[in-house]
Amino acid sequence: MKLPAEVTIYEVGPRDGLQNEARNVPTADKIRFIDALVASGIRAIEITSFVSPKWIPQLADSAEVARGVQRPPGVRMSALVPNRRGLDTALASGMTEIAVFMSVSETHNKKNVNKTVAETLTAFDEVVPAALAANVKVRAYLSTSFGCPYEGDVDPVKVVELVGRLRDMGVYQVSVSDTIGVANPWQTEDVLGRVLAKHPVESIAVHMHDTQGTALANVVVALQMGVTTVDSAAGGLGGCPYAPGASGNLATEDVVAMLHSMGVKTGIDLDKLTEASRTASTFVGHELPSKYLKAHLGKQARARRRTERLGS
Amino acid sequence: MKLPAEVTIYEVGPRDGLQNEARNVPTADKIRFIDALVASGIRAIEITSFVSPKWIPQLADSAEVARGVQRPPGVRMSALVPNRRGLDTALASGMTEIAVFMSVSETHNKKNVNKTVAETLTAFDEVVPAALAANVKVRAYLSTSFGCPYEGDVDPVKVVELVGRLRDMGVYQVSVSDTIGVANPWQTEDVLGRVLAKHPVESIAVHMHDTQGTALANVVVALQMGVTTVDSAAGGLGGCPYAPGASGNLATEDVVAMLHSMGVKTGIDLDKLTEASRTASTFVGHELPSKYLKAHLGKQARARRRTERLGS
Repeated sequence: MKLPAEVTIYEVGPRDGLQNEARNVPTADKIRFIDALVASGIRAIEITSFVSPKWIPQLADSAEVARGVQRPPGVRMSALVPNRRGLDTALASGMTEIAVFMSVSETHNKKNVNKTVAETLTAFDEVVPAALAANVKVRAYLSTSFGCPYEGDVDPVKVVELVGRLRDMGVYQVSVSDTIGVANPWQTEDVLGRVLAKHPVESIAVHMHDTQGTALANVVVALQMGVTTVDSAAGGLGGCPYAPGASGNLATEDVVAMLHSMGVKTGIDLDKLTEASRTASTFVGHELPSKYLKAHLGKQARARRRTERLGS
Repeated sequence: MKLPAEVTIYEVGPRDGLQNEARNVPTADKIRFIDALVASGIRAIEITSFVSPKWIPQLADSAEVARGVQRPPGVRMSALVPNRRGLDTALASGMTEIAVFMSVSETHNKKNVNKTVAETLTAFDEVVPAALAANVKVRAYLSTSFGCPYEGDVDPVKVVELVGRLRDMGVYQVSVSDTIGVANPWQTEDVLGRVLAKHPVESIAVHMHDTQGTALANVVVALQMGVTTVDSAAGGLGGCPYAPGASGNLATEDVVAMLHSMGVKTGIDLDKLTEASRTASTFVGHELPSKYLKAHLGKQARARRRTERLGS
């Protein structure tokens, strides 16, 4: 099995995770969480979203978060930006990287941003060139690349074409996203194979959701194809908006633990990462779905009980 | 990606699942559960264990279960058997297939069956030939094949050697087992590669635990190597004895959903299977860890709420 020597984890918990949480998290807790993730060794992190608070009240404090976090050298911090106004606020808040987003499927795109796919690409013309002119790097999420909750199957030819349109605009990396967690390993190989036949591997990341438990299996396929950037959320923060209690984002702990066990480097300290997630689970008010985290916390609790018994 | 056209799910929920549950499940519920699993299309199922009730009180009703379940033609039913006494009871209860078990690592084997690995092989001489003489098929679990909770790393050379010893005895299939869920895809390829270099693929099954979320990724590797028997437990029944709240057995729903989505046949009706697991979650008294099951039940609940709203 041929695997990359090193993988970049692109942490999306503070944005993609928290925006799907029911509870509003205090700004100070978000900042502490992001600082803790960075302290664990994460080197690429999406910290918030500059969308209208009417859409996502959970992230209404984006400017405060962006100004409040520590920004050690070597750490790339990004924020989601839906339009020119969002870009302006992001720039004013000191962001040096942004992410734009669109869906491959028309229905999901329409429900998400109230535009057709073509209209979304046109709207990006107001954001991407302005960001690049301000020396800000631009990433893109290509949602529903493996399936749409409304349309079902998605044509991989469209995925390849949209990756091309986004890269032509100057997007440095497209995160091919399984928004609803329906991708399987065979399909991952099929879709990525078509994408990588036309685009360099550094320009592609994978964003797998673990709704049906297949995220790691899909990631392993992507790694074997040379992909070295994997999106994930600490603890698996975010859940699944379509099914309460179910998993959404791939958990950072799960992918990092697997990578380390295979000798693939991430630069992340897994103990510090799980400690950051444990804290996050207290402020979102529920257990997080990461399997590694659950096993790890269970082991810790067991060791603590043993120590207490020995002490008494 | 080369995958088999068809995979046999070897369902272990009624045995490996229920033996790890805190609550004692009434015999009638067990029988209904097994009947429901068989009705969902499962064709190989381990229904109980003929061990001393002193060791595993959860399965003290093994003879009643074995005599109570429906046995439609074409369904292979097996039971775990630790010794000659267990075999005799299994035979008296009408079993036509049994499974024996041992660990690759000395410490786990000692803690589990209070024998060295060599002593366990000797003890099998009292069970396996007698079973074969009674026209009963014998399967074996080779526990801790990918790692031991006490010794850590396990030498894959020992795995290959023990598979050979078991097959020499007349065991028809060895289930190479990741008892504590530490296997990764790279290691799965390494260990199975060594095993399959010396043993035919039909003689090998994989038994992956999903403690760290890697079970499906490991299964995909095994499938690509030609393995066509996968052990799993409905709903992910059984949990992890070392970390309460964490996952143990790979959930049958998770692997079946993935296989079907890749066009691999199992003969199992996923809706009937999830319904069987939903019932099981009520009699064990807690939510089951299967990700597919959680997403599926969440979707159902959402649809029900929508219908109720429309109706009111």
